[in-house]
Amino acid sequence: MKKSLILLSGGLDSATVLAIALNQGFAVTAMSFDYGQRHQMELEKSRLLCEKYSVPHITMNVPLNTIGGSALTDNSIEVPDNPPESIGGNIPITYVPARNTIFLAIAAGYCEVNEIRDIFIGTNVVDYSGYPDCRPEFIQAMETAITLGTRYADEGKRFSIHTPLARMKKAEIIQKGIELGVDYSLTSTCYSPDKDGNPCGRCDSCKLRLKGFREAGLTDPLHYLNEINVKERI
Amino acid sequence: MKKSLILLSGGLDSATVLAIALNQGFAVTAMSFDYGQRHQMELEKSRLLCEKYSVPHITMNVPLNTIGGSALTDNSIEVPDNPPESIGGNIPITYVPARNTIFLAIAAGYCEVNEIRDIFIGTNVVDYSGYPDCRPEFIQAMETAITLGTRYADEGKRFSIHTPLARMKKAEIIQKGIELGVDYSLTSTCYSPDKDGNPCGRCDSCKLRLKGFREAGLTDPLHYLNEINVKERI
Repeated sequence: MKKSLILLSGGLDSATVLAIALNQGFAVTAMSFDYGQRHQMELEKSRLLCEKYSVPHITMNVPLNTIGGSALTDNSIEVPDNPPESIGGNIPITYVPARNTIFLAIAAGYCEVNEIRDIFIGTNVVDYSGYPDCRPEFIQAMETAITLGTRYADEGKRFSIHTPLARMKKAEIIQKGIELGVDYSLTSTCYSPDKDGNPCGRCDSCKLRLKGFREAGLTDPLHYLNEINVKERI
Repeated sequence: MKKSLILLSGGLDSATVLAIALNQGFAVTAMSFDYGQRHQMELEKSRLLCEKYSVPHITMNVPLNTIGGSALTDNSIEVPDNPPESIGGNIPITYVPARNTIFLAIAAGYCEVNEIRDIFIGTNVVDYSGYPDCRPEFIQAMETAITLGTRYADEGKRFSIHTPLARMKKAEIIQKGIELGVDYSLTSTCYSPDKDGNPCGRCDSCKLRLKGFREAGLTDPLHYLNEINVKERI
């Protein structure tokens, strides 16, 4: 079995990527990041997902909250409750500067030590969040950079960064996940859950998720704090 | 004044880069990394250097020792005492997998938040250590990746990764530093210093440094534990 590393946030997208990689026959190790995010709940969800799939799980610490500049890592910046039409416009304040660059770089180090050349990440351009580090041209540039920055280049090998969700709509991602048996009650998408992990139903991330379930003709198993509000608004 | 970020390890090379950036008229912030390295002494040296130059200093934590795979982060792997002819051959065991990739990625995040587009790093290809993440083609690929992975690409801006030492021999680096007034007694190069920070004089890093001073016709201000041994061998 070919070894792979999955960047697992505990959200809907990366949970689906985990199922896709397993379905493609890869041996999977999952890596999550404790980066000082306000939605720490996702680390617990990642752990539960890995337990369910019997997949080794590593959590790396990298305190991006000391850098700040994002509503996700700086408690003094509020998670926005934007009207849905603003999704996909300018880069939102929930963007964490260079997050995927940092995560992929750390993943490359781990992979080099463990002879892994296939990295999976749940970036997506259709229901595009406006995050620059989800762009296909970035992923391609990073694949080149991490190959040249490791001994793989000397050995005539290279990294492959797999983005199986790149061209899928949120509804298609959910349909694919359901087909592969993903239990979406074990995922957490919300940027601003309550202390029990219940999603707000108001942030961009909740809105995109709920819209995806609706378009897929399915019901999200999560209990939303403000679901009625969301249904009215989307 | 144009803002810049210097990756400062507290070693001879990055101390020289700091002086070069200041000499070029950049406003400088220095970033060091506590990555679980066995030579923690370099963090104290970095602090002293920044104090001397009145430069803001940030230390980021990223525990690469949890990844391991290097004599510098894994205490179960011994720092080698190779004969000098082995320097520049295969990738040495002191290589920390993807270290510069990870450091540059984190630097990019900090820079994006703080509107900095110029990053300085002391990589060098002449007295080449055999580290893949010091290659010019890697630096160039990383410059592209961090630009595409941040909002700079959307704004028509780009990162510049400056490598002023890239084509200099160790002796030339030292001569340049002396010309700019660098106090090399404030630097630490050794991979395996004693508890007081005195360099071993035996590791590749000490050997390259001592050879550089000798070729520059200068005396290294550091006190070596095994200097006589080194003089005999190089």
